[in-house]
Amino acid sequence: MNENPSVSFNGSSCPLPLKHNKNIVIGHGSGGLMTHDLIQEVFQSQFRNPTLDTLNDFAKTVLPAKSFLKGHLSISTDAHIISPLFFPGGDIGRLAIAGTVNDVAMSGGIPLFITAAFIIEEGLPIDTLKRVAISMQQTAEEAEVQIVAGDTKVVEKGKADKLFISTTGIGWIPQDVNIGGEFACPGDAVIISGSLADHGIAVLAARGQLNFSTTIQSDVATLNRVIRKVLKATPNVHVLRDPTRGGLGTSLNEIAQQSQVSIVLDEEHIPIKAEVRAACELLGFDPLYVANEGKVIIILPESESKQALDTLHSDPLGVSASKIGSVISDPHHHVLLKTLIGGTRIIEMLSGEMLPRIC
Amino acid sequence: MNENPSVSFNGSSCPLPLKHNKNIVIGHGSGGLMTHDLIQEVFQSQFRNPTLDTLNDFAKTVLPAKSFLKGHLSISTDAHIISPLFFPGGDIGRLAIAGTVNDVAMSGGIPLFITAAFIIEEGLPIDTLKRVAISMQQTAEEAEVQIVAGDTKVVEKGKADKLFISTTGIGWIPQDVNIGGEFACPGDAVIISGSLADHGIAVLAARGQLNFSTTIQSDVATLNRVIRKVLKATPNVHVLRDPTRGGLGTSLNEIAQQSQVSIVLDEEHIPIKAEVRAACELLGFDPLYVANEGKVIIILPESESKQALDTLHSDPLGVSASKIGSVISDPHHHVLLKTLIGGTRIIEMLSGEMLPRIC
Repeated sequence: MNENPSVSFNGSSCPLPLKHNKNIVIGHGSGGLMTHDLIQEVFQSQFRNPTLDTLNDFAKTVLPAKSFLKGHLSISTDAHIISPLFFPGGDIGRLAIAGTVNDVAMSGGIPLFITAAFIIEEGLPIDTLKRVAISMQQTAEEAEVQIVAGDTKVVEKGKADKLFISTTGIGWIPQDVNIGGEFACPGDAVIISGSLADHGIAVLAARGQLNFSTTIQSDVATLNRVIRKVLKATPNVHVLRDPTRGGLGTSLNEIAQQSQVSIVLDEEHIPIKAEVRAACELLGFDPLYVANEGKVIIILPESESKQALDTLHSDPLGVSASKIGSVISDPHHHVLLKTLIGGTRIIEMLSGEMLPRIC
Repeated sequence: MNENPSVSFNGSSCPLPLKHNKNIVIGHGSGGLMTHDLIQEVFQSQFRNPTLDTLNDFAKTVLPAKSFLKGHLSISTDAHIISPLFFPGGDIGRLAIAGTVNDVAMSGGIPLFITAAFIIEEGLPIDTLKRVAISMQQTAEEAEVQIVAGDTKVVEKGKADKLFISTTGIGWIPQDVNIGGEFACPGDAVIISGSLADHGIAVLAARGQLNFSTTIQSDVATLNRVIRKVLKATPNVHVLRDPTRGGLGTSLNEIAQQSQVSIVLDEEHIPIKAEVRAACELLGFDPLYVANEGKVIIILPESESKQALDTLHSDPLGVSASKIGSVISDPHHHVLLKTLIGGTRIIEMLSGEMLPRIC
């Protein structure tokens, strides 16, 4: 899917969407280009510091020299606004914990602690809140993290949509680990841990926005343990990234920009379930832009890709893992797709909102 | 103010508000008894772990033995939903940073890093968001903390109230520091760093809910530097607590419960500005329950109280600091107020909502 075929991704020629909007529109929360632009212009320009400037989903903090802390902290935060609160395969609580655990794990760090701040709309059944809390605790146990701090606020009816949960994850990055979106190298292999677009389509189905029935389940899962196995088996991983909002297409564009490389994908090796592909075709969605909540992109030296795939295939969360492409040296910093019919097309960053409120 | 004069604070005889509500009501976000009850029954019962069980506003985490981290992390989170976004003396951005910096500082720790997750209502002017971001950065610089991670989500118009910001603070607690609500001892002095209720009344005025004009400004401020001065001057501080939602009355009740002591206050020594007192009287509010955002309760051995007061008086944020009471051994774990007219009354925990959406 290319929503803005006339827009080059080159920064200077790209008409920045923010400049055409004085007010926030739904697309600003898409996780795609408009979100990037908003973050860059509004927040990044204010909160500038070496940690934020790396543009990863996690903060790898440098601790003050005079403290007794060694190594690095990995810190990540996420606001969860998904509607509906419960969907096939998960709920907002599982999503909140897994999403934040995964963001911390993408640093190569070990997630340890989670905080959760709840904004609750007046009138929410307390039983609903209890179901969400139970799900959060189960997911935290699955990931072996502790929920160590929380806050609860209530707003008047009509001033929120049932329940929002903001989570922050804090983990520890061993001193020898150097993983980030800026480390992709020409010659590296690009691996995805499983099939694409399950989460987005499952949430859409739960909203009743499909005109057909489906058994598609969200893939929401905590990835820290399978990632740890991969890091143990293949010590030279360069990039880990979970393709959530904006999908694989947006995540790979971010990495191409961060590392100043291009990425070439083989469409035939990108795993997508037949049912998900059919739903996407009927709805006019490109699965490359649909959110995933239990998948990880792994970029590492080609020589280690078989070992990584073998490790992934031995884990329930990686049985459908596939090598989908490779990193090349190229001044355009594009993501290119070699299609099934033999052509090549540029995969741009998602520029607006496709599926609102799915994470 | 005693909103439920017939309700004893004793746990067993107290009709728990949660049991009478199947749905969330505004009082569940008050920071008072209903919030406590909700947190206890819904979250605390699920997320049980030694760190959360201490019931402080910060998490003092025990790090895994095999990591190289020494000392403790102090972690705190807060959702900010204040309406209006701008008010005399501050705005939601300043409040979000200061509130979280202060919560971390209450552990005796040094705040280092802040994360911020934004939930934005479609239609919010981007200039508004920029003003908030600028204010956040200024406040972070004032407190010498870095905003290291962020997230931005947008919800449809009518699904949020302009802007919510959830912040998490991470700090470092030196190994020799042991401060918490559970450490108040009989014989300790109770100090407040300045006048009460400024924030709550200023926000009410900004909403146009006062029928008279006022120049009262919110006291929102970062307290970590003045606290550091106090800790340097008086090494045996037992408790630090910022009396925000629920006010001084609620905070002291929390401490009395945590430390299993009673606290006796002298009304004549509690600093309240004449204008604030007048506004409270006209509106029927008890200033002991109105939120503060730049004040700290300090509980420490009586022998160190003069030194603490001298240190506070030398700082702009502590010029009106006052010793307001003392800690006594008593099985009822009450907060008692010796009134100006010579009586004594029990100050209960705030049981419902008095001023919605002020933090």
